Formats: sequence, C-alpha cells, structure tokens
Amino acid sequence: MHRVGIVGATGIVGQQFIVALDKHPWFQVAALAASERSAGKSYGEALRDPKTGAVRWYCDEPPPAWALAMPVVEAAKLDASSLGLVFSAVESDQARELEPVYAKTTPVISTASAFRYEEDVPIIIPGVNNAHAALLERQRRNRGWKGFITAQPNCTTIGMAITLKPLHERFGVTSVIMTSMQALSGAGRSPGVLGLDILDNVIPFISGEEEKVQKETLKILGGLRNGGIAPADIAVSCTCTRVNVREGHTETVFLSTAKPCDAFAAAKAMSEYDGGLHELELPSAPEHLIVVRDDPFRPQPRLDRDTEGGMATVVGRLRRDNVLPNGLKYVLLSHNTKMGAAKGAVLAAELLAKTGYL
Amino acid sequence: MHRVGIVGATGIVGQQFIVALDKHPWFQVAALAASERSAGKSYGEALRDPKTGAVRWYCDEPPPAWALAMPVVEAAKLDASSLGLVFSAVESDQARELEPVYAKTTPVISTASAFRYEEDVPIIIPGVNNAHAALLERQRRNRGWKGFITAQPNCTTIGMAITLKPLHERFGVTSVIMTSMQALSGAGRSPGVLGLDILDNVIPFISGEEEKVQKETLKILGGLRNGGIAPADIAVSCTCTRVNVREGHTETVFLSTAKPCDAFAAAKAMSEYDGGLHELELPSAPEHLIVVRDDPFRPQPRLDRDTEGGMATVVGRLRRDNVLPNGLKYVLLSHNTKMGAAKGAVLAAELLAKTGYL
Amino acid sequence: MHRVGIVGATGIVGQQFIVALDKHPWFQVAALAASERSAGKSYGEALRDPKTGAVRWYCDEPPPAWALAMPVVEAAKLDASSLGLVFSAVESDQARELEPVYAKTTPVISTASAFRYEEDVPIIIPGVNNAHAALLERQRRNRGWKGFITAQPNCTTIGMAITLKPLHERFGVTSVIMTSMQALSGAGRSPGVLGLDILDNVIPFISGEEEKVQKETLKILGGLRNGGIAPADIAVSCTCTRVNVREGHTETVFLSTAKPCDAFAAAKAMSEYDGGLHELELPSAPEHLIVVRDDPFRPQPRLDRDTEGGMATVVGRLRRDNVLPNGLKYVLLSHNTKMGAAKGAVLAAELLAKTGYL
Amino acid sequence: MHRVGIVGATGIVGQQFIVALDKHPWFQVAALAASERSAGKSYGEALRDPKTGAVRWYCDEPPPAWALAMPVVEAAKLDASSLGLVFSAVESDQARELEPVYAKTTPVISTASAFRYEEDVPIIIPGVNNAHAALLERQRRNRGWKGFITAQPNCTTIGMAITLKPLHERFGVTSVIMTSMQALSGAGRSPGVLGLDILDNVIPFISGEEEKVQKETLKILGGLRNGGIAPADIAVSCTCTRVNVREGHTETVFLSTAKPCDAFAAAKAMSEYDGGLHELELPSAPEHLIVVRDDPFRPQPRLDRDTEGGMATVVGRLRRDNVLPNGLKYVLLSHNTKMGAAKGAVLAAELLAKTGYL
Repeated sequence: MHRVGIVGATGIVGQQFIVALDKHPWFQVAALAASERSAGKSYGEALRDPKTGAVRWYCDEPPPAWALAMPVVEAAKLDASSLGLVFSAVESDQARELEPVYAKTTPVISTASAFRYEEDVPIIIPGVNNAHAALLERQRRNRGWKGFITAQPNCTTIGMAITLKPLHERFGVTSVIMTSMQALSGAGRSPGVLGLDILDNVIPFISGEEEKVQKETLKILGGLRNGGIAPADIAVSCTCTRVNVREGHTETVFLSTAKPCDAFAAAKAMSEYDGGLHELELPSAPEHLIVVRDDPFRPQPRLDRDTEGGMATVVGRLRRDNVLPNGLKYVLLSHNTKMGAAKGAVLAAELLAKTGYL
Repeated sequence: MHRVGIVGATGIVGQQFIVALDKHPWFQVAALAASERSAGKSYGEALRDPKTGAVRWYCDEPPPAWALAMPVVEAAKLDASSLGLVFSAVESDQARELEPVYAKTTPVISTASAFRYEEDVPIIIPGVNNAHAALLERQRRNRGWKGFITAQPNCTTIGMAITLKPLHERFGVTSVIMTSMQALSGAGRSPGVLGLDILDNVIPFISGEEEKVQKETLKILGGLRNGGIAPADIAVSCTCTRVNVREGHTETVFLSTAKPCDAFAAAKAMSEYDGGLHELELPSAPEHLIVVRDDPFRPQPRLDRDTEGGMATVVGRLRRDNVLPNGLKYVLLSHNTKMGAAKGAVLAAELLAKTGYL
Repeated sequence: MHRVGIVGATGIVGQQFIVALDKHPWFQVAALAASERSAGKSYGEALRDPKTGAVRWYCDEPPPAWALAMPVVEAAKLDASSLGLVFSAVESDQARELEPVYAKTTPVISTASAFRYEEDVPIIIPGVNNAHAALLERQRRNRGWKGFITAQPNCTTIGMAITLKPLHERFGVTSVIMTSMQALSGAGRSPGVLGLDILDNVIPFISGEEEKVQKETLKILGGLRNGGIAPADIAVSCTCTRVNVREGHTETVFLSTAKPCDAFAAAKAMSEYDGGLHELELPSAPEHLIVVRDDPFRPQPRLDRDTEGGMATVVGRLRRDNVLPNGLKYVLLSHNTKMGAAKGAVLAAELLAKTGYL
Repeated sequence: MHRVGIVGATGIVGQQFIVALDKHPWFQVAALAASERSAGKSYGEALRDPKTGAVRWYCDEPPPAWALAMPVVEAAKLDASSLGLVFSAVESDQARELEPVYAKTTPVISTASAFRYEEDVPIIIPGVNNAHAALLERQRRNRGWKGFITAQPNCTTIGMAITLKPLHERFGVTSVIMTSMQALSGAGRSPGVLGLDILDNVIPFISGEEEKVQKETLKILGGLRNGGIAPADIAVSCTCTRVNVREGHTETVFLSTAKPCDAFAAAKAMSEYDGGLHELELPSAPEHLIVVRDDPFRPQPRLDRDTEGGMATVVGRLRRDNVLPNGLKYVLLSHNTKMGAAKGAVLAAELLAKTGYL
C-alpha cells in the first residue's frame, strides 16, 4: 500500500480524488490538505459552508466515512516526506508554489497546468506514452529532487490524444483540425459558467484552451530523444466552445495522415489499440481505451460519457474527409471529470507504481 | 403590389412567411394553401388542433388578423395562374409534385430541397449570387414554363456561403472544414427533437445535412458559364451536430485561400461586403450582410441571433489557422428560421421583383 | 419461478420492464408481445428503426442478450394461459381491449389507466395499501375470470400517496394542495415534449393529470369496506406542470391533518414508515420507502432521483404551514420511470407473489 | 424633466435602469454612481472587465451612447441634493448605508430590501396601492428628511400581489398557498446559479424568499390606518423553487375568499382591473395590469414573459379549487427583471411624479 496525500482536497477535483481512491487496492489516503481556512478541521467540517452549514460535496457518489473523519492539514505545512505520493488538485498559481516543495521528497501527480509545459515534466497518459516516464529521472537530476512532478493533460486534450495515438503509430498523423463542445463541469465552480449565460446558448471561446490543446498534443505524441521529448511533427488547430452539457467533452476531429488510411482501417486501429495496458493490469484502466461505435447518432455525451466508468474515449462517425490529404474525420467523447481529471490521474499513478517510479 | 400565395401555410415555415409578409410594401398575400384537411376552413380555424382546440401558432409575433380570416385552399387545387408568385413551404415530397404545376404559370420560391440540386434551378442568396437568376431563363426554356422554380439554400448552408463569398471573391477560397452546432428549430416539429433527447446532450449527426451543405456551397459560389452554373472549385467537409439551442446555427469554419489573407484583411472584406444590396434597396435586406465582432466571446446564439432582425450573419473569433495553407478560422452565427428560412425567401423574392423576374 | 409476459415490450415502459426483470429471482420472462408490425421478429430486430436501422432502446442499461434473441408475438394473439403473470405496458385504448382477454386466465399488472378507476380494480402500492389486494377476489367473482387486472398508479400520484400514508395513518390527513414540476420522461416519446417547447420554459398544464392524481390518491389511501374500497375522506387539489428535467417528478405539498402534527413528528413518521415491507422481503423493495432530508436545498431531481435505485421517495423542506389547519408543507421527489413505472409494477408483482395472489 | 441619478449603475439592475430610462419623457439621467473602483471612469470604461477588456453589459438592448459617455461617481460621494430622484440598485447592506444619506435631500426609490419592512416605508405598486404613498409624509416627519425612501417589492411578490388585488377588493382574499418556479435571472450574477447546478434540475429552496413574499404581500394589500399601514388579514404560505428558465417567474396560486367567487367572476375582475392607471397616463404603465388567458397551456415563461413589454402579469388556468373555502386556483407569470425590477421602479417613480411626491 502506498500512502498518498491529496492537496486541494476540499475542491471539486480533490473530492473526485477521494472518490477515485476509495477502496483503492494500491493506494491509501493518509493525508488531506487544503487552504489555511480548512486546516485543523475534520474533512467533514471543512466541507461545510460557514454561512449555511450545508455540506458542499459535488460528486454523485457520497463522501466515504473515512474521509469525513480525517483531519485536514494546511497545504503549506503538509509533511510530504511521510507520503509515498501526492495528488495535487490545486489551482495553477498555488501549484507553482506548493508542488516543488513536495517534490523535494515525494512524487507529485498534478492536475494543474503550472509545470505541464516545462521540458523535464512529462504529461503521461497510460497506454499512450508510458515511456515518457523516463523523463522523470532527468527531472530528478536536473532539480536535485528525490520526488518529481508529473502533470495530467488538460481535459480537452486527453480524449483527442488517445484517439490520435493509434492512427499516428500506424499511419503518421500530420495535421489535425478540431472543434470542441465542452461540458460545464470543465469550467469548475469558481466562478464556473452561470445558468443564465449558457441556457439556450453556445459560448464560442474558452480562454487559453486552444493553445493548451495544441501544445499538449504535440508533447504527448512526441518521442523521447536525448533524454527529452521531441514534440510530434503534427499541425494542430482548434476552436474550443462551451455547450449546455453537464459532463463529457464532445470533439469533432478532421485529420490528415502520411500514409493512406481508410475509415475501416482507422476504426480497427482504434478499437484494437491497447498500448500495453492489459498486460500492466492497472486497477483503474478501462477494458478498452477507445470504443468505436458505428451508430451515426453516437457518441452523445449523456448516453456515452460513462462508458467503462468514464475511462474510455468513445468514437463515432468515423469516415473519409475530402479536404485534407488522406483525410479522416470523426467525433469523440471523453469524460472530462473522470479520465480527464482525478480518475485519469489515479490511472497515471498506477502506471508509475507498476513501473517502479513510486 | 405582387399578389402572392403561400403553400404549406399552416406549417411552421408557412407561418413564418405570413409574419415575414405582414405589411410588406411590395407583396400582398392573396392565397393560402395547405393540405386537404385544412381546405375550406378559414386560416384561423385551420390552425386549431382538432382534439384540444388550441391554436397551433409557433411564431413569436402574433398571427395577423388578415391571415386568420383568409380561406385556406387545397394545395393541389390552388390556381397559381392568378398569382404573381408562390412561396412554397411544403416538405420535399409534396414540393416535387406541386411546384412544377404552379411553375407552369407562375414563379415559385421554395424552401424545400426537392429541386435545389437540379442544374437549371438556382439557389439565390441576394448579395451573394444575384447573377444566378439568369439561370431562370434557361429553366423556362428547358421546361416550357411561364413561371419557374428557384430554391432557397439549407439553413446550415446560408450563413457559411455568405461569409465565404467576400473571401472567395478577393482571395480565392480553396477548402473549407466546418463543424455546425445547430438549433432545435432547424429540425421542425414533425417529429422534431424531443426534450428528453437533447437535454444535457449533443447529437453528433443530422441525416443528409452534411451532403447538402457541401453541394449547395459549391453551387452558390459557382460561376455562370454557358448558361449554367459551374460549381466553385472548393473542397468542403463538414460535421453537423445538434445542440440544445432554440434558434441560431453556430458554425466553426477553418478555411484555406489561394492568395494570402490575414485576419485583418478577412474582417475588412467581410465587414465591407455588400454585394450590391444597398443599391437595390430591398425592404428585407439587412444593413450589413455580415457583422464582424472582435469580442472573443461572440457570436453567441442567444445574444446575437437577432442581429439586424435575424438577417445578418455574425462572425467572431476571426484568426489565423496554422494547419491549412493561408489558413483562417472563425465562428459564425446565422438565424436558421429568419435568414435561413421564410425571411430569406422573401428577400430573394424582393431581388427577383427588383430585377424584373416577377 | 413465475413465467411472465410483457405486452407492449418494444415501447419505453416495456423496455423498462425488461431491465427491471433482468436476473429477477422470482420472475422469468417467457413471452414478449407487441404490435402486429413487430410480430414474428426477434426482439432485437423489432427494436430497429425500419428506415435508419438504428436500435431504438431508451434505457440507460443495455438490453440483455436473452431479450434481444426472444421472439416477439402479436399482443392480440398472446397465449396468456401459458403464463403466470402478464405485465401490460400498452396505451390505454389497447389495454381496454387486450387486458380483459388475458385476465380470463392470467393475472395482469397494468401501467395503463384503462381499468384504474373501476371499483373492483385495486391500485396497489406495496407498503401503502397491501390489503387492497383482497379486492382481486371480488373482481374474479364479478367478472368470472381466473386471472385479474391490477393497475399501477399514475407516476405523479405514487410519490405523494406514499408520503401521505404515514401521516394519514397517525394524524389523519384531511386536505392536500399540490403543485407538481414533472419530468419530460413522464410524457413519453409519442409524441413527447419537444426540446423547442420546453427549453427556457415551464408548461403549466398536463391534460388529465390533475384529475388522475386527485382520484387515485383517495382510492389508494381508502379503506376496504364491504369488499370494496371506500375512498379516503381527503380533499385533494393539484396544479400539474412540466419542467425541463429528464427524470424525477418534484412536488410541493401543503396539507392539513385532523390531529396536530409538527414537522418533527411528521419527519419521524415518514422516516420510520415501513408498511410491513421489510418483513415481506420483496427483492425490488427499497430499504426505506421514504427518505427525509434536512438540507433545505434537497431534494433535487438530478441529485436525488436515484436514491435507493429510484424506489425511494425523497422528502425535504418539511415545515409548518400557516394557512391550513394543523398545516404542514414539504417537497417530494419520486422517480417517475422507476418507482413510478415498470420497477414499481414489478414490486407490486412481488407483493402479489409473496401474498399468494399469483 | 426630473434629473435622476442611478446608484449601483454598473450592476445588472443598474443597467436595466439605464435601459428603462433611455428616452424617458419625464426623467433625465443626470448622474451615475457605483463603487469606488468605477469612480472617475466613464460608464463605458467602468463596464469593462479589467482582465479581459470585455464589456460586461447584460441587457438585450444595447447600452445607449449617452450612458457610455457619462462619468461615474462614487456612490458614497454622490451629491444627491442636485438630483430630483435617486434610483438605488445596490445590495441591501450598501443600501442601508447609502440611501438614508441621499434621502436627507432627495427621494429614493430602492430595489433593495434594506428598508422594505420598516413601518414608515411603503412598497408601492402603481395601480395596486397608490394611496400608500401617503406614508412618505409620515416618513419625512419621522426622520426629518426632505426626501424619502420607497421600496420596490421582491420580484416574486409583485405578480402575486397584483393578481390578488382585484380579488381582494371584490371578494376578500383570506388565504393564499403559492408555489413559485423562479427564473435564473432572479438570482443575479454574484454568484448566481451555476449552469452545472440547474441543468436537468429544480432547486427547491431560495433562502429568505418565502418570508419576503409572505410579509410583503400583507403590507402591499394592507390598508392605511392612523397614518400607517395595517397589514391585510390574509394567511400566506409559499414554497419557492428555482427552475431552468432565464426570465419570468411562474407561480401556482391556490386561494380562499370571504365571499363566493367563481372562476368567471375572478377572470372578469382581473381582466378589468385598472387601479386608476389609465387615468394617470404613466408612460411605463401596461395597457392591462393583468392579462387573463383561457388556453390551458398558458402562461409559459418563454412565450408570455414579454407581454406588454414585461409589465403585465399573465394569468391562466383560472378554475375552482376544491380544498379551500370558496377556493380558486390559477397560474401566473410575472417578468422578474422588467415589472419585477427596474421598469417596475420607473413606473413607481412615474406615479410619484404624477401625484406630486417628486
């Protein structure tokens, strides 16, 4: 059993970590950290709204009893050295301060974007780029840390990167044009998207999102070279929008490959893609990383987001595109708060545990 | 005053024609036609649900008194020869039977797709391809009709075609990749989209829509040659989806031009584009065919669909695309039941009236 | 094992019966019946849309393999005598014809309203009025049937009747004023509620609903007398509305009791109410018929509808009302397509099986 | 022309005041006041988000040019003595500090609840209780002010009070049971209701709302006695909920009258009710205070909220109630951000101007 801590434990992503780690066979939650305001309280008390007394818990699953009783420590005072792993679910500005302190002694898996673009920090998606974990050695040497920081991808990147991987491996993806229709939960709660603003509406812009997706995709699909990651040679262009959906990011993808690839071959490559996951027997891994559906009306966020516990990316409408060279197009659906957040981070932790990085 | 008839007058598009023609300075509604079931009733009676007695009227504007009192004739028995113009708002299968009969004596402007793809039937968007009206002469000769049939574009095509026109004229559009997020009203009411199916959801497929947009765009932007239309040499690829929005189709567009064109030049070309509309002084024409906004959060369907009475196409997020050669990308919003349906057809009728085709 | 048939098996409620009966310990589905159109096909084939080939399956759970392979027989030709029980999920007009034929030989549990108001047909809610099953003997005698027909309540009645029961038992409910905010699924799919009509909206009328709730509540809470049911002496008044919620009917209840009853006593009575269910050990019974919450922001349909598998009624905001004598008010939430439809009917069947009526 | 100021001018209600006062025949906006942060800027600048530069303007109508150019002064430093009237659109805690200062010299009409329940502060709804303005004399004497404070009712109270008035006048309303289904705009934007929380949902509690409605209704319908207001002798009980509607509060009302009153008489009393408004010729007054519809599917918020510019209360489903003595029930719809906010306050100002209080 690895003793793990959750930093930012009272926030939504922190709560999702608690659910994802409940009864986990390899990880035991040994510390919960949050802001000074929550420190010294039990987790159950810390969740209470000071004004109304209502418990602010946002997962569908109820909070486990063990969590409610645990004490919350201040994130700045967390003794990471007593832990085997820290899951960090804080905002980027706090991540920038806290995570390097923890990493001196302890591995950190972060959902924040603070270190995601630094050259010695990998963005690991199990099954897609397991080998990138090797970068952590370099990071340790570079920074003189016993631990390390590894970053989770943006919730809009992850589904697209997973679906591109088998195509890139076999056919060489050269360019990608993507339009996202993102769920409300991706915007969180502070401040989040007002009901007033999204009812009967589409919002055609999400600040910073397109740049993140473009940069991360190249890094995730890049190759290890000279101890670093050489970004994949793919041109990526996105328009990211918000729609009135609670969970599940839908994305339309148009892409070009170096070698000819018809829709049938693409469907086969995606459906069969495993990336070594089965062999690793990670507890949170989906049975299929990618589920390809031939019903043209799928995937739909409400019907398909929970496929394989929200850990599979569902693809549909796979067909030829007549604009790009060797063009293909499809629609994908990825669960932004399951594979795209805490559960995805726990899966990454399982990979690191299994491959000896913890 | 041109005496006009509306066929399919009791349906939603027919109702929108009545609103669009209320107090029209050039057109006077002289006949309303519908199915046999409605024939012989007053229009007001024909709108009543036989079971509940409720009036089935679906426009925001109330039904004008003159319309409620008018008799409804059976579409198959309408004497089109007494009319100067017929607006046809029936489904395609009925259009295929009825419209050629009317066209023997009388011009027909149809919102159905029945004849839209025939080579002597133009799809006219005033300001975009006024010259295509010349095809009507050929159609008359070909078919031996005194009248003619002209078709309105699909509601998903029209906004894109309008925004492509100024770019095509100045820079030569060579390819277009588009994702639509279409409103519920585009699916009509028979059967339409159930609330159950679209709540908290996106539906990634609209049967036949992508093919229509691809084919129509080339025809609309094509040139007159040897008395026919040579389709524009543009590769168009789309993914059409349905979102939980009442009115207003949002589309993300990525395109390539032959000549270099930066976002500033594109914005200028779009904003200034007039296509000769001002000079024609058509009563239903918007002041600006295209409104370009620089607020990155616009256009939004709820906020922008009624721009210039729903007759302007609103463009935002205009910027470079790094995937396509001389790439540009933007988001557009077009009101699918105003410019994209009856009001757009009335505008086309105005063009034909002004240019001597009626 | 009781061999059961499902009539109307291809419709939504029929599909829900298949899910509710999958792996049921007491009931085995031995026949599926539907319209002539589906007869002779396998159930899987019968679900396919003849035009698009898409499978029309509307439950969250996938269709069980055993069901897809079963043959569908025509409802009018179903040999009910070979079955121990028929679940009828057809519309009322068909129910009126089909159910009496089945009942000649076989018990019928119907979700239709066709026979719900006949004086020898009970509306049984397990835990609320188990004794009403005695009426079935009289029905058999009256009608000369070996079987019988028993009716499920309307989905808007059931949650209110369940919550009123413990209060009526202890304090004597004398009057009830209720406003419902009903989910879209309650309107079904033929034609159902259009997305266009309910987006950004409330519809303040559901035809026939208020009368049903008023009549059924009195019958369910009535007492057996002289072999019949004497309606409860309660004045009930409702306004039923439709809101943009997928599943789960929310109802605000204001009521008056004969004996004084404060909110605390009411909460206790509701929370502890069991109606003999535990002792009966029915497989589909919830652990608690009524779950009372003290968080004033609950119940909410999205958060609470699946409480105890959708079989519990969730009550919140229980407090004094200052208008009615001994007034109380609360908000309740009942899952209209679980307890309020097929799963509720299966629970009723379990009660009848356990108490010797099958 | 009365020179008026708007305090809280940059907030949503402040913006609605600007729209409501644009081209007003009697009032000219002479000062805009807001927080210290906005002071010294032009109004147009003050609306800009300091981070994104986007203009935060939330009305459907565009901001008038005169407003954008006006300087914004700090609310605490506003020289009210130079104004004939102050419209106050600040939150209650600020209202408590600022309004008494302005009232020393100048009449104040406030949308805040700060002084709404004080015994010398009237809540005036033109047409309902014009005579309550007499209380302002007493307030001036009591407090030694040249000006006064008058309060607008809560947006949930106003529609109900208007519809009760003609019934109370003719038949004597004795008790009222109301359930509200309130729009998102009623919760404002700070923090407002998240899309995540209201999608596919109903929230059964709005903190403090029920108490406000109950208290205000009695005050508004009360009579002047001994220079004060004697609350009406009506028992009022409410459950207030939030639904996924943008604008327009829907309320189901069940009521009892002292004298018998059938639905027809009630409809007549409501439809004909004028309260002296026509004679006063107030520019913002609706043609009909109450519009009664007999289509049982109305009122619906999306279809009916803008009736008479959002200034009429629309009533439907008027019928007998069988629970309360001389019981009646109906559904009403009131536009919470038109009659229920700034436009309603402007109407009240018009009444005060016409009757000599300004």
